[in-house]
Amino acid sequence: MTLKTISQKLLYSFVSFLLLTIGTAQAGNKMTNIKQLLNTYETALNASDTKTIMTLYSDTAIFMPQHADAQVGLENIENAYKHVFKAINLNVEFTTHEIEKLGDTAWARTSSAGKTTILANGAIIDEGNNELFVFKKENGSWKIHRYIFSTTSPQK
Amino acid sequence: MTLKTISQKLLYSFVSFLLLTIGTAQAGNKMTNIKQLLNTYETALNASDTKTIMTLYSDTAIFMPQHADAQVGLENIENAYKHVFKAINLNVEFTTHEIEKLGDTAWARTSSAGKTTILANGAIIDEGNNELFVFKKENGSWKIHRYIFSTTSPQK
Repeated sequence: MTLKTISQKLLYSFVSFLLLTIGTAQAGNKMTNIKQLLNTYETALNASDTKTIMTLYSDTAIFMPQHADAQVGLENIENAYKHVFKAINLNVEFTTHEIEKLGDTAWARTSSAGKTTILANGAIIDEGNNELFVFKKENGSWKIHRYIFSTTSPQK
Repeated sequence: MTLKTISQKLLYSFVSFLLLTIGTAQAGNKMTNIKQLLNTYETALNASDTKTIMTLYSDTAIFMPQHADAQVGLENIENAYKHVFKAINLNVEFTTHEIEKLGDTAWARTSSAGKTTILANGAIIDEGNNELFVFKKENGSWKIHRYIFSTTSPQK
């Protein structure tokens, strides 16, 4: 084996390693972005932080809260959260069951469980929901594009 | 303009027309398949027809009915529908608000409204829901892959 051949092999190995590293980092980054978005949503929801929540939605988002019509557009979504946070205080934890990315669109299924405090009387009740999200990449950042949740608590 | 030029122009026009027609027919067909799936679901739901409903789900589907945990897999989904149809009779109409296709995956947002008959006492109540679907193409046919619904009725 000549010195030239060895140099070439080393160069190929290095390039392969570099490409693999970049590829893995990018895939990891993409995945982290949606998980991070969900983590930020969880924290903001528990803090009744409408301002932060609104930064997570796409410009043409639709939110489907339980017991209400679909909230189309950012203004309606913001009012819906303000309305909810006047009535309750959430303390829930999200579990991400699956995330699938398809180009600039993605969807995720999560569930959440914890406690809700009714602000009117201080009562604390169990809270449990399933959630389905559709995300859109907007200017390079993943945003919530469609979002619906539904209670898992038995019917009264 | 020579006869040859005219013949060529006619041929080009014909080929363009043919390609456009095929393209439109294919796009229409794809769209129709998901709309048709939703129509079949509506009819089967109103007929408490679990057998037909089960043909609409993908092999690895997950259904998130309200007031229950996520139903993972066909056996659990089938039991969930049987359980529901023992308790209620639905008479609802679905409105498809949007369908987006991304290769072999698609999502749709719908809402439904109508009446529910409680079989135990014959009472008829208003029914209204938002729905979010994720579809997968399985052996060339669109199937329900993830499905969640959430009531729009005001909280009692």
